[in-house]
Amino acid sequence: MSGEFFAVIPAGGSGTRLWPLSRSGEPKFLLDLLGTGRSLLVETVDRLKPFAPVDRVFVVTGGAHHDAVRAQVPDLPAGNVLVEPSAKNSAAAVGLAAFVLERTHPDAIVGFFAADHVVAEAEAFQSVLATALDAAKSGLMVTIGITPTEPSSAFGYIKKSKDFADTEAVHHVGEFVEKPSFLDAQRFVKSGQYLWNAGIFVGSVASVVKAFDDFSPELGVPLREIAALMAEGLDVAQLWEALPSIAFDYAVAEPAAKAGQFLVVPGSFGWRDVGDFDSLAQAQQSSTTSDVVVVGDASKVHPHDSSGIVVGSSGRIITLLGVENIVVVDTPDALLVTTKEHAQDVKQIVEHMKAQGLEDML
Amino acid sequence: MSGEFFAVIPAGGSGTRLWPLSRSGEPKFLLDLLGTGRSLLVETVDRLKPFAPVDRVFVVTGGAHHDAVRAQVPDLPAGNVLVEPSAKNSAAAVGLAAFVLERTHPDAIVGFFAADHVVAEAEAFQSVLATALDAAKSGLMVTIGITPTEPSSAFGYIKKSKDFADTEAVHHVGEFVEKPSFLDAQRFVKSGQYLWNAGIFVGSVASVVKAFDDFSPELGVPLREIAALMAEGLDVAQLWEALPSIAFDYAVAEPAAKAGQFLVVPGSFGWRDVGDFDSLAQAQQSSTTSDVVVVGDASKVHPHDSSGIVVGSSGRIITLLGVENIVVVDTPDALLVTTKEHAQDVKQIVEHMKAQGLEDML
Repeated sequence: MSGEFFAVIPAGGSGTRLWPLSRSGEPKFLLDLLGTGRSLLVETVDRLKPFAPVDRVFVVTGGAHHDAVRAQVPDLPAGNVLVEPSAKNSAAAVGLAAFVLERTHPDAIVGFFAADHVVAEAEAFQSVLATALDAAKSGLMVTIGITPTEPSSAFGYIKKSKDFADTEAVHHVGEFVEKPSFLDAQRFVKSGQYLWNAGIFVGSVASVVKAFDDFSPELGVPLREIAALMAEGLDVAQLWEALPSIAFDYAVAEPAAKAGQFLVVPGSFGWRDVGDFDSLAQAQQSSTTSDVVVVGDASKVHPHDSSGIVVGSSGRIITLLGVENIVVVDTPDALLVTTKEHAQDVKQIVEHMKAQGLEDML
Repeated sequence: MSGEFFAVIPAGGSGTRLWPLSRSGEPKFLLDLLGTGRSLLVETVDRLKPFAPVDRVFVVTGGAHHDAVRAQVPDLPAGNVLVEPSAKNSAAAVGLAAFVLERTHPDAIVGFFAADHVVAEAEAFQSVLATALDAAKSGLMVTIGITPTEPSSAFGYIKKSKDFADTEAVHHVGEFVEKPSFLDAQRFVKSGQYLWNAGIFVGSVASVVKAFDDFSPELGVPLREIAALMAEGLDVAQLWEALPSIAFDYAVAEPAAKAGQFLVVPGSFGWRDVGDFDSLAQAQQSSTTSDVVVVGDASKVHPHDSSGIVVGSSGRIITLLGVENIVVVDTPDALLVTTKEHAQDVKQIVEHMKAQGLEDML
């Protein structure tokens, strides 16, 4: 059926800045990071249900996570888990799904949604997505940009250009901007012309594969071949390994935007990319009046004159005394103590441990 | 045999400032606090061996610790563990042992040594103890005062008075001073006339019981009766409960010193009362060049840009990142994160937890 909507969920990234909560074997998207009882992946699938029942959801992930994805989303048809032979950055993940759909549903609309983002307000998200899908009928690709709440230098930005079709809800994309300096981020937010790039976009399958063909044939050509081989159940490892490892924004979205082929719909729906323990604490802060945010069983955590975040999954009593902006992550086999200010540096710890041969802890 | 030496080790105190390392069921003196492979109690017994073989050692402790004491010092005769029906402060513990010895070895010399102090230089200690025992032949009681290394307000002080018997190694005690202010502690140390009161003293059994009779008959009279009842295997709980709860220094040592009955031998033998995690770190600091002192398996601890102390007994990987003067105490069922500055306040945490009905964690 023409115009059917398919949701693609690229589920990569190890979340090393969330170690020891996230591990290579259990990355961020598989975790119940907010203590809701559901993983970020399952939350993402559920949020998309009004648009795409689970048989129209594709998850693109690594072989190591295939079984966990199937277990967490048991209704997901086996063929809807697209396994990447290795991690090849976002352009390959997006393109793989697009070229698979080109074979089976060439007239469909497709949307891409990260597996590990937090959306606090699902209904607001769904309303914005409906607007984006409507705009995608134009044949252009449509990204959803997040109205920034602070001058973050942790995200890329999308510059709005002129309104599209005389509606203030949809704009042409002026440009995609990589993660800026804090100074530039301040300028962007003050201008009111920039949105956070959350990596969410929709478009007809035809428009997406055409953008690969036009702007990134070094990906488009082999990915179309890979999709064909996969349909026959043939091995694609060698072709896959030869793919350039490049971000979708850089390889496709930026040149497509320059060519006037990208629209943007601004949205506000409590979006967060919980990339480290500081942002995890912020994401939780609204749900507590305490200076100490607890992820896990709060009855086990006893803070005194302290502030920060405690992530407890070991079942032990955790007592804090006179520590400010502390980060305590307590898992059955590893404990991390750091501060919010050092939340970004947790990634380096993981590098250190790798260098010390402690891979089994990572 | 006349003049035989008996060592008495009062083993009380719960060490709540060392929670969750020390617990009510496993207080400080039962712990291998310095990672030597031996508990502070066993270290104390061993240190006294050149003077008192284990059959001339008495341990005064609570009923809850009787079995642990027997297990840690298996050679200790059963009758040499004197069980206090309840904790009644140091005067009762010292007096109980003195009056028991009065019945069995009235001509003996007795010495009192806390079970939970650290002595880094055992030979230096033994040399000072020999001097003190020699001085005790005078019939006076002799305390060993620690030459202070810093103006601590955590200890009581002993003021030296005139030399005893023309030897500079032994002095009359001028007075026992309770824990001073930091300002007074600075004056004391600067004067060179004050020593730390480590609660170590020796004397003839006769001199000790006479001091109780003379200066604290409200303890001496019932304690002599308690010793007699215990010798017959009779119940002493009721008499014991009625004893005043008072420190030996206050009840006996201070008035005895005023009456000219106390001598003091200054000593330096790496003495420490490891009362909290800050002092535990200091006691360990000499054995490491790292900014992070580890008590336990150091191979499990990974510090980055951090300083402080990690006490690990859970077997888990412990990673620190960018935390200064941190205190991390990691036990199988409880975790404490605090700072060296708050080391003294750990006691309050224990009070809080008691109030919250968490006695089983204490």
